[in-house]
Amino acid sequence: MIVILRPDASEEQLQHLIKKTEALGLKAHVSRGVERTIIGFIGPEDVLRVTPLEVFPGVESVIPVLAPYKLVSREFKKEGSVIKLKENVSIGGQQIIVMAGPCSVENHTSLSAVAKQVKKAGATVLRGGAFKPRTSPYDFQGLGEEGLKYLKDVGDETGLATITEVMDPRNVELIGKYVDIYQIGARNMQNFSLLKELGMTNKPIMLKRGLSGTIKELLMSAEYILSKGNFNVILCERGIRTFETATRNTLDINAVAVVKQLTHLPMMIDPSHGTGYWNFVGAAAKAGVAAGCDGLMIEVHGNPEQALSDGAQSLLPEKFESLMSELRLVAQAVSRQI
Amino acid sequence: MIVILRPDASEEQLQHLIKKTEALGLKAHVSRGVERTIIGFIGPEDVLRVTPLEVFPGVESVIPVLAPYKLVSREFKKEGSVIKLKENVSIGGQQIIVMAGPCSVENHTSLSAVAKQVKKAGATVLRGGAFKPRTSPYDFQGLGEEGLKYLKDVGDETGLATITEVMDPRNVELIGKYVDIYQIGARNMQNFSLLKELGMTNKPIMLKRGLSGTIKELLMSAEYILSKGNFNVILCERGIRTFETATRNTLDINAVAVVKQLTHLPMMIDPSHGTGYWNFVGAAAKAGVAAGCDGLMIEVHGNPEQALSDGAQSLLPEKFESLMSELRLVAQAVSRQI
Amino acid sequence: MIVILRPDASEEQLQHLIKKTEALGLKAHVSRGVERTIIGFIGPEDVLRVTPLEVFPGVESVIPVLAPYKLVSREFKKEGSVIKLKENVSIGGQQIIVMAGPCSVENHTSLSAVAKQVKKAGATVLRGGAFKPRTSPYDFQGLGEEGLKYLKDVGDETGLATITEVMDPRNVELIGKYVDIYQIGARNMQNFSLLKELGMTNKPIMLKRGLSGTIKELLMSAEYILSKGNFNVILCERGIRTFETATRNTLDINAVAVVKQLTHLPMMIDPSHGTGYWNFVGAAAKAGVAAGCDGLMIEVHGNPEQALSDGAQSLLPEKFESLMSELRLVAQAVSRQI
Amino acid sequence: MIVILRPDASEEQLQHLIKKTEALGLKAHVSRGVERTIIGFIGPEDVLRVTPLEVFPGVESVIPVLAPYKLVSREFKKEGSVIKLKENVSIGGQQIIVMAGPCSVENHTSLSAVAKQVKKAGATVLRGGAFKPRTSPYDFQGLGEEGLKYLKDVGDETGLATITEVMDPRNVELIGKYVDIYQIGARNMQNFSLLKELGMTNKPIMLKRGLSGTIKELLMSAEYILSKGNFNVILCERGIRTFETATRNTLDINAVAVVKQLTHLPMMIDPSHGTGYWNFVGAAAKAGVAAGCDGLMIEVHGNPEQALSDGAQSLLPEKFESLMSELRLVAQAVSRQI
Repeated sequence: MIVILRPDASEEQLQHLIKKTEALGLKAHVSRGVERTIIGFIGPEDVLRVTPLEVFPGVESVIPVLAPYKLVSREFKKEGSVIKLKENVSIGGQQIIVMAGPCSVENHTSLSAVAKQVKKAGATVLRGGAFKPRTSPYDFQGLGEEGLKYLKDVGDETGLATITEVMDPRNVELIGKYVDIYQIGARNMQNFSLLKELGMTNKPIMLKRGLSGTIKELLMSAEYILSKGNFNVILCERGIRTFETATRNTLDINAVAVVKQLTHLPMMIDPSHGTGYWNFVGAAAKAGVAAGCDGLMIEVHGNPEQALSDGAQSLLPEKFESLMSELRLVAQAVSRQI
Repeated sequence: MIVILRPDASEEQLQHLIKKTEALGLKAHVSRGVERTIIGFIGPEDVLRVTPLEVFPGVESVIPVLAPYKLVSREFKKEGSVIKLKENVSIGGQQIIVMAGPCSVENHTSLSAVAKQVKKAGATVLRGGAFKPRTSPYDFQGLGEEGLKYLKDVGDETGLATITEVMDPRNVELIGKYVDIYQIGARNMQNFSLLKELGMTNKPIMLKRGLSGTIKELLMSAEYILSKGNFNVILCERGIRTFETATRNTLDINAVAVVKQLTHLPMMIDPSHGTGYWNFVGAAAKAGVAAGCDGLMIEVHGNPEQALSDGAQSLLPEKFESLMSELRLVAQAVSRQI
Repeated sequence: MIVILRPDASEEQLQHLIKKTEALGLKAHVSRGVERTIIGFIGPEDVLRVTPLEVFPGVESVIPVLAPYKLVSREFKKEGSVIKLKENVSIGGQQIIVMAGPCSVENHTSLSAVAKQVKKAGATVLRGGAFKPRTSPYDFQGLGEEGLKYLKDVGDETGLATITEVMDPRNVELIGKYVDIYQIGARNMQNFSLLKELGMTNKPIMLKRGLSGTIKELLMSAEYILSKGNFNVILCERGIRTFETATRNTLDINAVAVVKQLTHLPMMIDPSHGTGYWNFVGAAAKAGVAAGCDGLMIEVHGNPEQALSDGAQSLLPEKFESLMSELRLVAQAVSRQI
Repeated sequence: MIVILRPDASEEQLQHLIKKTEALGLKAHVSRGVERTIIGFIGPEDVLRVTPLEVFPGVESVIPVLAPYKLVSREFKKEGSVIKLKENVSIGGQQIIVMAGPCSVENHTSLSAVAKQVKKAGATVLRGGAFKPRTSPYDFQGLGEEGLKYLKDVGDETGLATITEVMDPRNVELIGKYVDIYQIGARNMQNFSLLKELGMTNKPIMLKRGLSGTIKELLMSAEYILSKGNFNVILCERGIRTFETATRNTLDINAVAVVKQLTHLPMMIDPSHGTGYWNFVGAAAKAGVAAGCDGLMIEVHGNPEQALSDGAQSLLPEKFESLMSELRLVAQAVSRQI
């Protein structure tokens, strides 16, 4: 922790600060410059974090030296984590995995049909929402447990791993009975009750970055889960909110390289939400693979004209299949496989 | 709903669109321009909302005509809602109310002391967090039920109404036993499970705008609560996330006038989170009152050097008292009282 | 300047860094913590600024201690600057001044009419664009020199000081012949050629914050002007670009208090551009006065239906007059006058 | 142009609007819905654009139907433009071209050395700033004409085409004598005087997107240049300003696909400014190629420790060479060449 004093800070204020922090077990290194005095504090950062040094008289600014996360950091674990999603399906290795399927589970027939198509094209995980976070209370809210059953049935039929979003800590147990992977949606990245509840399970969790979540906050949210004991966390960039309105969100492609440098956890890209329009999904997916992501989540729907949600960003199964062929080439170009 | 066709859209595509929408009970008005064909759809907007018109072949863009919210709108209810918070305390009328207190409830003694001070200065509601949403799992998470008890005790002692944040739908009942007003924090503006749960209570709810929540989304989240039956919703602007880092958040002062135009619900300002530094709180609070807000929420702490959270943005009780005098003058200047 | 080393930085890298910086005349204070080594550099910050310390091997991050601006800072000049705009009109003192008039100068008759009306209502500066920055090349680009002549004539007639935007360094001299104050528009906040050119004049300059300009960058742009010798700079917040689309821009009301703390220069608010809709202008103007601004710039047009630009955000003269009465009350409430 | 009336709009207001617009040569199609009346206007959009319909009494909102740009649009010209930069070097075709070199031209020796290295690695255009837009007036401002001479000499020596930034309309002629391509920097995207001046030359122009420029505004700025007669415009995404601070800017990778859909002009990516750190440049460059860009601009410096600007984001020549090999593979994967 570094503290910079105001130019008009008195010696008394400096001594007050040193005395208070030494009482907490910290050691202060004072550097007196011509225009400012700087203090470097050595000692347990955790202690310092709970003391609001910026309110001490004479303090101009406080600069943390260490990242606030630990268990998720590359310093804690150098090699990348490989997370097993199902027998023969894992993420974080050489293989880039693809999760595909409809935005919402709508019925057994259409889910089964699309599942077979995405499997044939090379996806290994089936996505589908049973509990949907919708901006409007009047929009389709998902089928609930019925949708979970369809997911499980179709997962069993096809051998695909399954993923669905959990929005409420009271549904964690129920959802855990039916699917292989929990998804935490962008709107819940800082739903700390939910993070803690999921941290006490042992299933893989895919944590999406919030619309205005910084990369550091994304890692802190992952830290919540790891700190409760569940290390099977996958991160996902799905577009952030900016001033640009030509796309639904702005896919932060830089986040892939930044996250891979800071943490050992696998990193995915969601080009469907990251763009919001099916005709831009392909370009964003290829960019994600080229930038080094470990997985992709793509919305595919057999009949977007009748989709109950997010039709505009869903690919038709045949488009998805041809995209997969293209992605395979890009993956090879960066020494990966799909 | 207005649909604009692409310049290369075929007559066949137009007829396909009309046929499909007429089957849903809508009537299409077609205007053929030189460069584009426009279709205005008349009929139940709710029907249209679930049909993803933007995926129909030939469609360039889809423009909704009606706001997606109803119960919260000024069209639904012309006069402003006045919401009773406690005997003799209500918000939405001539009186601008002030909610004040520490970020977190820390112990009975300090809460009681600060409560008396803010009451004397003119506050009518005591704030204090018992369950705290913290970015880091290693930061102080609040006292939980113990904190609620202190809040209730101090509320009883002083006659102040009390408000605290609820983060988890499982805590709604518990918190309801102790406090007068539920607060939904910025990170939970789109925690739809929580919104629905609170919509089934009948206590006043203060809903904070999310860090990247648009005004429209804020109103939609309020609509969730009203649509479940609870009309006692108060909105609160507490700063949005932008590129500017000189302050913790950017207080969107425009939101006051926009919200007051669109909805009948009362609108508050939180200048503490809206700025992040105690020395800017006064200017932001005065701006809020001048812009027409119905209430203010201000963090006050007896000893910010020892605050367990948000010390940097807390006012000392004496600063709060002098700010209240200044606010009274601004309120009078805009024909209100504090 | 503070440098934080990476955890894996070698002693050799540390010595390389110290040797290089000592050669530049700097002194290094090294603090070795358990997890990181920190180096505080003492010496001429100007020297350090041109050395890219972040590229030295082993360096994790570099944190500047001093603000990059000097002449504009409160440390350089404690008391607020009062800038004379015309005989009997100055900004930065007790009086809050109001600049009003049409977005564009359209003709002599309408300019003269509106000038008389705004003067009567209490404005002391007449605004009007002769060279207009328009997003589209097909939109009205302003009357050029003809517009300047109308401005001068009407300024002479009414005794109002005049302000107009300068977009091109080649027009500085021409515009200087006709008007009292140069305006630098938001899009030109970092047009450094223009800043330097204007720094060599001695007329007052009103510098608007860019759509994505940070407060620090705004101050750096002012520093460009002052460093060339012209200290008569007035700053203006006119709304920044964020994700919110309910208003044209997001007026950063916090900027008033922040800027007043950091610099001695006067600070204005432009509620017309800051909101984009005439019906929100009043609330934003009152907020600006309550927050402590030194001046307001407000668009007023006699017939918005026929305005050649920005009609939607222009007030009718009678609305402006009643707003001025309201503003006077708010100004008094914060011990100022209008 | 579509106009939506307020629910309380009177018949009189509707007739007033129709009368006024018919006088301008427009035809109104009125659709009366249950809750709102909608008017579609047919006729010359240019006429409508200058009439501020949103200020007419009774109008709730105004929605433009046509894009405000013409010459740059795909509707105007279906096939992509191929722009010749020098004998044997053009952009917009199958070949993805790479522009590389130092941020600033510093001296002849180092420029010549780096030029040979980037040429050997496969770059065909040499970049280097002679007039530098720097946030601080105290930072290195570029060598001016001396730098231009070095650029020309080294261009002649190596056969590389050359590009440099122009910031001031008064330098257009001077710079035109020395270099092959003009660059308009992000801060000048809406410097309309400069755009117009460059529109009257016939050299290729690379126009960078502003930090807060929307894609639509970028296209409008290009339209300024084309409307003056110069069709040789290349667009460049270089990162936008968002709330994320882990990188210097947020590279908007979506912009590649969006721009390629809307316009026939070539589209480049600048991964150096788009990330701000050399270690993220490779990932962003590969993403750009995979997403379909037509060119890359990459900063390369022989000795970043001594770079006078932007050292932190410059690649060493050997890193650039190995990146080029990797980019070649990605280009092939998307059926392009480098």
